[in-house]
This record gives sequence, structure tokens and C-alpha cells, in this order.
Amino acid sequence: LKALIIAAGKGRRLNRLTKGRPKALVDLLGLSLIERVILSAKEAGVREFLIVVGYEAEKVREKIGDGGRFGIRVEYALNPNWNGGNGGSVLAAKGLLNEEFFLLMGDHLFDPKILLELKEKKGCVLCIDRSRGHVDEEEATKVKIDSQGRLVEIGKDLKEYDGLDCGIFLCSPIIFDALEESAKRGDDTLSGGVRVLAEMEKISLFDIGGRFWLDVDTESDYRRARRMILSQYKGKEADGLISHHLNRPLSSRLFTPFIIRLYKDVTPNQVSLLSFFVGVAGAVMFFLLQPVIGGVLVQLASILDGCDGEIARLKHLQSKIGDFFDAVLDRYVDSIILLGIFYYSVTKLQSGLFEILIGGAAIAGNLMVSYTSAKAVLNLNYRYKGIIATGRGRDLRLFIIFIGGVLGGILPHSPFLALCGVALLTNLIVLARVVLSWKIFSK
Amino acid sequence: LKALIIAAGKGRRLNRLTKGRPKALVDLLGLSLIERVILSAKEAGVREFLIVVGYEAEKVREKIGDGGRFGIRVEYALNPNWNGGNGGSVLAAKGLLNEEFFLLMGDHLFDPKILLELKEKKGCVLCIDRSRGHVDEEEATKVKIDSQGRLVEIGKDLKEYDGLDCGIFLCSPIIFDALEESAKRGDDTLSGGVRVLAEMEKISLFDIGGRFWLDVDTESDYRRARRMILSQYKGKEADGLISHHLNRPLSSRLFTPFIIRLYKDVTPNQVSLLSFFVGVAGAVMFFLLQPVIGGVLVQLASILDGCDGEIARLKHLQSKIGDFFDAVLDRYVDSIILLGIFYYSVTKLQSGLFEILIGGAAIAGNLMVSYTSAKAVLNLNYRYKGIIATGRGRDLRLFIIFIGGVLGGILPHSPFLALCGVALLTNLIVLARVVLSWKIFSK
Repeated sequence: LKALIIAAGKGRRLNRLTKGRPKALVDLLGLSLIERVILSAKEAGVREFLIVVGYEAEKVREKIGDGGRFGIRVEYALNPNWNGGNGGSVLAAKGLLNEEFFLLMGDHLFDPKILLELKEKKGCVLCIDRSRGHVDEEEATKVKIDSQGRLVEIGKDLKEYDGLDCGIFLCSPIIFDALEESAKRGDDTLSGGVRVLAEMEKISLFDIGGRFWLDVDTESDYRRARRMILSQYKGKEADGLISHHLNRPLSSRLFTPFIIRLYKDVTPNQVSLLSFFVGVAGAVMFFLLQPVIGGVLVQLASILDGCDGEIARLKHLQSKIGDFFDAVLDRYVDSIILLGIFYYSVTKLQSGLFEILIGGAAIAGNLMVSYTSAKAVLNLNYRYKGIIATGRGRDLRLFIIFIGGVLGGILPHSPFLALCGVALLTNLIVLARVVLSWKIFSK
Repeated sequence: LKALIIAAGKGRRLNRLTKGRPKALVDLLGLSLIERVILSAKEAGVREFLIVVGYEAEKVREKIGDGGRFGIRVEYALNPNWNGGNGGSVLAAKGLLNEEFFLLMGDHLFDPKILLELKEKKGCVLCIDRSRGHVDEEEATKVKIDSQGRLVEIGKDLKEYDGLDCGIFLCSPIIFDALEESAKRGDDTLSGGVRVLAEMEKISLFDIGGRFWLDVDTESDYRRARRMILSQYKGKEADGLISHHLNRPLSSRLFTPFIIRLYKDVTPNQVSLLSFFVGVAGAVMFFLLQPVIGGVLVQLASILDGCDGEIARLKHLQSKIGDFFDAVLDRYVDSIILLGIFYYSVTKLQSGLFEILIGGAAIAGNLMVSYTSAKAVLNLNYRYKGIIATGRGRDLRLFIIFIGGVLGGILPHSPFLALCGVALLTNLIVLARVVLSWKIFSK
């Protein structure tokens, strides 16, 4: 299916943010609104787009181009009368779309899963939201539905209504006839066209069932969108305790927005590298017998380790090679940090068999936790859960090092105690995993 | 499909090995011949077996039981006249098999893939071998085939023939009628029954196309079977250079047969543990500043590391948890060995930043090679090939340590040089893998 995206409007109510550009180009966490719409549709499998431009049309063309850099194809249609009703923008695509297509708004963000479900429908379908959670209802287009689930009325000023129009449609070319009929009657809005379709009984409704969507009209919408995009990791990732209560709140609310503000075009891999080098700097501080700074830098690296994933998700840049690269860097920097603490311990305190055994156990055990995670999925198709869960624990280990390092300012032994803690913790986890795997799979 | 296995014979020509037991119970590398037949059929999906016993019938029943310990079901039929032709043993199953079944000989070893292909055929099918490679043709039952591929004649004494009877059949119950007809004519052999089926045009032939099979009749057959089973790893496993030219020949020809002779019921996991403890002993020798013994024990552990897989394969005991267990033990013992060399180096030579960096790089790099192997398959569905290949390299690393350790007797620095070698080698492999993965997957 192709997607038709309406991006002709000026966005008066957002003019502090548009700065003379079309509303669809307003930047939200490193991507313009229309880029977010395009990338969400791409995630749902759409590869061909028709964008209707109007106000400052060239700026949209310049930004999106032929779609090559997104791995899609983009064509354009012009609505010179962009100041009129939005039905006119849809009509600008008349004759260019001869089969069913998605109709999307350039300023409406949405969960790609909505399109995946909508794809299975036939004819003209309007997505509605009956959940009434997060959206500013006053500004929204409302719908009234009869007992048979048919659309009775649509408009911004309905007093009684059953749901909100999400601005996401599946359309057949019949929509163009309906829009022309509505325009003849003096209503050149998309809602007018929908009203005509409802009269003809040619439109059905699809309840998106609480999935995310948001119409960015006002600055308050914009702030809400920002908040919702930044909070989308919560519960999704298998975050450990430290990560959940400390690192993730800091990375998602502070570090990630800050990094994007600093450098809009940042890539997730650049942030992985940044986290790596901050960690290496922490290790170097231990080598230089500066455990306090070392510990703080290690914790900083741990927080930054959340940012690459967040930036990947909010810029639609997740990639398997990115995950692989990040994982390898994480394992290396952890080893270097542990080696730094080992050096600190044998230099500052004493160097003997016990210290060497602990140092080796910490470095090996730390890597064995990651190795057994990967190997269990690979060999046994099993993911550890609970306290020995796959993909957790790094936050806690680095936090132990942070505490050990910071306390090193007053207690010179504390970094070595942290090393002992990591050695014990990691090797116990590996032992528990081997025992558990054996119990489950040796039958 | 069920399988009918003929195991009634005495095996006169093997009497040095049978020791009064039925021929099918002759031990071959830790499993009796009939167990090998059963486990090969099980690998091809057979779960129900009917075994025809005769000579010392109770001994077979005792050995195989109801099949529970193999995860199969076994029933028995008796051929009291086991001294007669082998057709009588097949006839002992008359009335017990009403659908198509596999007919197998209790002393014929074979590649399970033969049954997987045979399963797709219909009616009575005789497996023949036209490749004439490894079998003692003088003793074999021969077949003559016409230009249409039909069986013309079958027997041990054919002067001209086109292939050998592998003793592997797909049968329908019509075989029993053919055997009775043949017996009436005075021939109570299975070949007699096949001859009658050929007259009725009720038997077709299936060329096994060079796959392994072997009829164990004589001591020379027995030695050949032993050799072939022990050599089945070659080329199958992605062995490294040291493994291919040194470890594998030693493990498959010397160590594995020796271990099985010593303790017939040995399991692969016990051998994994043995290899682990020999390696730990090697590490302890380095800790005790005895690099020569340490190096030798490490190389011994490396050779023993091949035995668990060999024993698993030749005892049909391969398991995913076994692979997992072995992999975790290998990673740990390597880390302990490297730590031992590190301790030797800083104790015997000098202890400084450089030595600590090399020690850490060796331990971490060694684990990172295994980690990136697993992670690349998991995240990228990619297996490294060539010089950075997945699943290789351990043989070379342990060999470097062996050389370094043994030379340590005259050159005290050589274990540390081996440590440097491992540190350099492993981290270069990881670097090459990351660069390669990036090149392939970052598009």
C-alpha cells in the first residue's frame, strides 16, 4: 500500500517552533514531524509515499527529497490553496492514486501497529480512539457512532461524542468523489468528505484500542508528544533495578534530550562510542589511582549506555549491527574498567595471589555473564529470567564500581571490595545459570 | 514407521568377540552393534521396534529391555530355529506387522540418512550400494540389475553383479508371503524371499549413493567398522589447523578409544569435566611456577577437548546442553590458564603496568572471541569464516601456551610471550570481526 501524507499547512499555532517552515517540518527530538510519520509508516511496511505540499513547499521537498535516504520512494503533489480546508490537500492527489492507500496527516504521530492492523481492512476506514486518555479533546475532531457502530456525525464542535478522529485512514479513490461533493456543498474539509462518505454508507470505523497517536497542533501538544516519545522505553526494556530507578530516568529525561539538543544529527553508534570512551576515561582514572573520578565516570558511562538505544528508537535508527557494536564495546570497556581497578588495588594496596585471583575472576566472570546469556539463547533457545536474567546486571555491576570508586576517596580498600563484589556476583550468576540450564535441559 | 531388527544369530566368525553372546551384542566403541542399529534408526525418526531374537535371546532382552532408556518402545519375537536361514527370523514377525516397516539387520551399521530417504518410498524396497568402496565384497550379498533398474538376481556367489545388498529394506507384509513361498521351495534365506518378490515384480531398488553402511561379519569387518566410526568427524567439524593435524588424530585414534576401553559407560559430559580439570591442573602448574608441566597439561586438555564431542557422536549422545556445558567449561578453564601464566609472569619476571595490560587483554580477548562468535550468530545471523572463523582458534591458542610453557624450562620469558601472543591474536580477531560485521551489516 502507498501512503498519502498531507503536509501543506503552515501551523500557525506552533509558530514559535515552525520559524517560517511548514508545520510538518517542526523538529521533535531530532526528527521532523513528517519524518516521524514517514518512518512509522515505513515500519508498517509502506515503501511508496505521495506527499501533498503547500506552504513553503520547497522546504519539504528539500528535507525529504526522493526518500532514498530512508529506503523509500517519495513523490509530491501541490496544493496551492493550502490556506483552505484540508480536504483540498487530499484532492490534490486525485488521479495519482488508483488503488487503496493510507491517508496520513503530516503532523499526526502514531504507533506503526495501527497501520499493520488497518492494512487488513477493505474500503474507506477511519481510525478512531475511544479510549480518551492522553489527547487534548477540546482541539480534536470528534465522532458520534450509532449502536450498529456506524459513523453518525463528525466535527470539532460535537457536544456529545463517542470517540476521536485519529487522522489515520485507509482510503479507496472514492474519497475524492466524496470530497468534491462536500466542496460543492461548501465544505472543503476532510471531515466534510468523511461526512459525505458516511451518508453513502461507504466508510467504516476502526478502533485503535488505546494505541499511541497524537495530533501536534499546539505547544502543549508538542510538549506532550516529546514526553510520550521519551517515555516509550519504560517497561519495554528489561532494565535492571539501578537502570530502572536511576539510569533510565536520567538518560531518557536529561541525557538523551541534551545530546540531541547539542547535536541533532547524532547517531546511536556515536553515542555508543561516547559511552565507551567515558568508561575508558574512568578506567584510566583508576590506573592513575584516582578512584573517585574513576567511579563517577564509570557511572556516567553506565547512564550514557542507555542513550544509544533511546536515540536509536526515537530516531527510528534501530539496527542489529548497532546492537552488536554496542554489545562488543560494552564488554570491552567493562574489562578495561575492571583491569583499572585491579591495577589500582595491586599498586595501592598489595599484590598477591589473592588479588590476582579476584582480578581474573572479575574480568572473566563479567564476560561469562554475557557469554552464557548469548550461548543459552543460541544453543538452548532459552532466556534466563528473574535475578539471573539475560540482558541485565551491567547496571548493578557498574554501580558497585561507582560506589567502590567514590568511597575510595576515604577508604582505599573500597575499589578492591567492589572488584570482589563483581567477581562474586558474576560468577555466582554463571554458576546458577549452568545449574538451572542443566536441570531444565539434561532430560 | 516401525522397524523390524533381526538379531537371532550367533556370529560364529566373530566368536573371539561375541564371548558366548549373540552377535548383535558385540561391543563396538562403547555400544553394542544392535544399539548402534537402534540409535541410527531412532535418529531417522523410528520410535517402535520389533526385535527378533534367537541365540541367547535373554541376553538381548536384558540389554535392550523395553527401550525406555533410549526413549523408544521395543517388543520381541522369538525365532527358535535361529540356526537356520535368516528368512526364518523375518518370518517370526509374521502377523505382528500389518503395515509398511523398515527391515534392518542387527549387525549392519548404516547412516541414518538412508532411512530418511527410504521412508519416502512405497512397497518393498531393497537398499543397494553401487559405489563399491569400503565393503568386503567377497562376503557380501550381490545383486544383478537389468537395464530398467529391476532386480534380476541376488546371492552371495554371483560372479557378475551391479551392486551389493545393504541389508536395509522397506517392507510391506507381502514379504512374509514371499518368504513362505521361498521356504516351500527349500530356501529359507531372506535373499530367497527377495528372489520371489523379484519374480512377482514386487520389489524395487534404492541406491544409497555412497552413504555409509557396513555388515559386521568378520574381525576384519569389525576393525573396519571401528576405523570408520572413529573417522567420522573428519571434515565434519570446523577444526582449526592444530586440531586437524595434531589434536583430532590423537583424540580420535588414541584418546577416545582408550577412554572407552577404560570405562565403557563414560558420558561426554564426564569427558568435558576431565578436560576441564586437566586444564585447571595445567593452570595450577603455572601458579606453582612449573611452566613445562603446565604447558604439557594444557595441550593434553586441548586434545581431551575433542574427545567429548567424539564420544557424544559415537555413542549417539549429542545434546545441546552438553554443547553448552562444554562451551562454558572451556571458557573458564582458558581464563584460569591465562591467569596462571599471568601469575607466573609477574612473579617470576616483573610486575608492572605492561604485564597487567597484557594479562587483562589476553583474558578478555580470549573470551571476546567466543562472545563475538555467539553474538554474531544471534544478532546478525552470521558465522565468521576463514581465518576469523566461528568455533575455531582455541586449538591454536592452547598450542601457543603449550609451546610457551614447555620453552619456559629454558627461557623463563617464553610463557609471558605466549600470553602476549594470545592477547594480540584474540583481540586482532575481534577487531577484524567487528570491522567485517560493520562492513557487511551497516548498510
